[in-house]
Amino acid sequence: MAAYALEHPIVAVDVVVFRVHQERLEVLLHRRREEPYQGIFALPGVAVRVDETLAKAAQRALSEKIGWPEGLLKCVYFEQLAAFDAIFRDPRGRTVSVAYLALIHQQPEMPPQDIQWKSAIQVASEALPFDHTEIVATAITRLQGKIRYTNIAQAFLPETFRIDELHKVYETILGHELNLANFRIKLLKLDLIELFKVLTEAPTEKGGRPPHLYRFKQDLLATVERDFL
Amino acid sequence: MAAYALEHPIVAVDVVVFRVHQERLEVLLHRRREEPYQGIFALPGVAVRVDETLAKAAQRALSEKIGWPEGLLKCVYFEQLAAFDAIFRDPRGRTVSVAYLALIHQQPEMPPQDIQWKSAIQVASEALPFDHTEIVATAITRLQGKIRYTNIAQAFLPETFRIDELHKVYETILGHELNLANFRIKLLKLDLIELFKVLTEAPTEKGGRPPHLYRFKQDLLATVERDFL
Repeated sequence: MAAYALEHPIVAVDVVVFRVHQERLEVLLHRRREEPYQGIFALPGVAVRVDETLAKAAQRALSEKIGWPEGLLKCVYFEQLAAFDAIFRDPRGRTVSVAYLALIHQQPEMPPQDIQWKSAIQVASEALPFDHTEIVATAITRLQGKIRYTNIAQAFLPETFRIDELHKVYETILGHELNLANFRIKLLKLDLIELFKVLTEAPTEKGGRPPHLYRFKQDLLATVERDFL
Repeated sequence: MAAYALEHPIVAVDVVVFRVHQERLEVLLHRRREEPYQGIFALPGVAVRVDETLAKAAQRALSEKIGWPEGLLKCVYFEQLAAFDAIFRDPRGRTVSVAYLALIHQQPEMPPQDIQWKSAIQVASEALPFDHTEIVATAITRLQGKIRYTNIAQAFLPETFRIDELHKVYETILGHELNLANFRIKLLKLDLIELFKVLTEAPTEKGGRPPHLYRFKQDLLATVERDFL
């Protein structure tokens, strides 16, 4: 049994945490404390223990490598991304990594050093350690796909929001401009969002019309069935 | 290092092979030759070797457990489904299984016993060994989702086909009827399929109008971007 087990790959998890910040999709990296790639920024990840699920291991990666408290982890949207299995992806030996996609709205206080939010698009075109560049690129593709037909965008927003805030999240993730008026009509037509209330005062000193506050009609990830068939 | 490795899960693969046969979505099962669950029908699967990728292990599961030759494996569409990780999913010890979705059009000759095509819907509501019922149910959901916005249906069809043959594949997978005239218009409008040729004779003795043969415009899994945004 021992020999049998040793001939098989180790299972790890790596977590791609995204936030939308200042009109930029950002990914969370930490500076590695150990070899290999000591001192280099990489995705948080751990080897999976025999008595924990993959999702639990992903949460442990965020608490051990990023220092997030458990309460914060509850505010994070988690989704399994894919298994990454290149034979030589880890110089320590054969490791299959199940990557997780995590989306966050709140921006936790974090130790100023050894933790960084970096532009996801930039990271996906640079050389992170292991196969982390490929994992980030896969996560971006998944997010860009899902935002088109689900309500996943709400993971990046407070419970109620102005339409231009939601619009900006979509533009940031898709990476191109969207007509604001058409955008509002389409999201209402898809029954994704609803009007929550109309504020009596404009939120900024600039004045203008009092803003409408919207909210998503359903909890995170009730998939919108588009009317293709 | 030995103790470290032994504390971690084994990585396995399980493969959900679907075909559409006689207006039924069917999944391929084999009768287990070994304990646990000896003699019971289950998905083909193997433990992943230290020097093989997950996809290679999935192909090995089909050659070892189903007896498929390598040439046939090349005709199968493969896609990673998800990792299944319940702590007690395998009575032999902690095993994380990365499941694969495989779609096939050609129906290979197979040993008549110990291999069965079963109704996927029926299997997903029955008790297969391990967590294979959950894996099949997840595979059905993935397929039903993808057929709505990709050209994945072509995996179940020859290169050219009549519109009613394609229509039947969609109805079978989605599990409900679709208006044939609307269906044809929508698929042409989405630019998914194109007219290949008009046969000069009707293909059956029933007569009627000579049939139009269609084909998919792009290779398998060029995702159709729907016009939501």
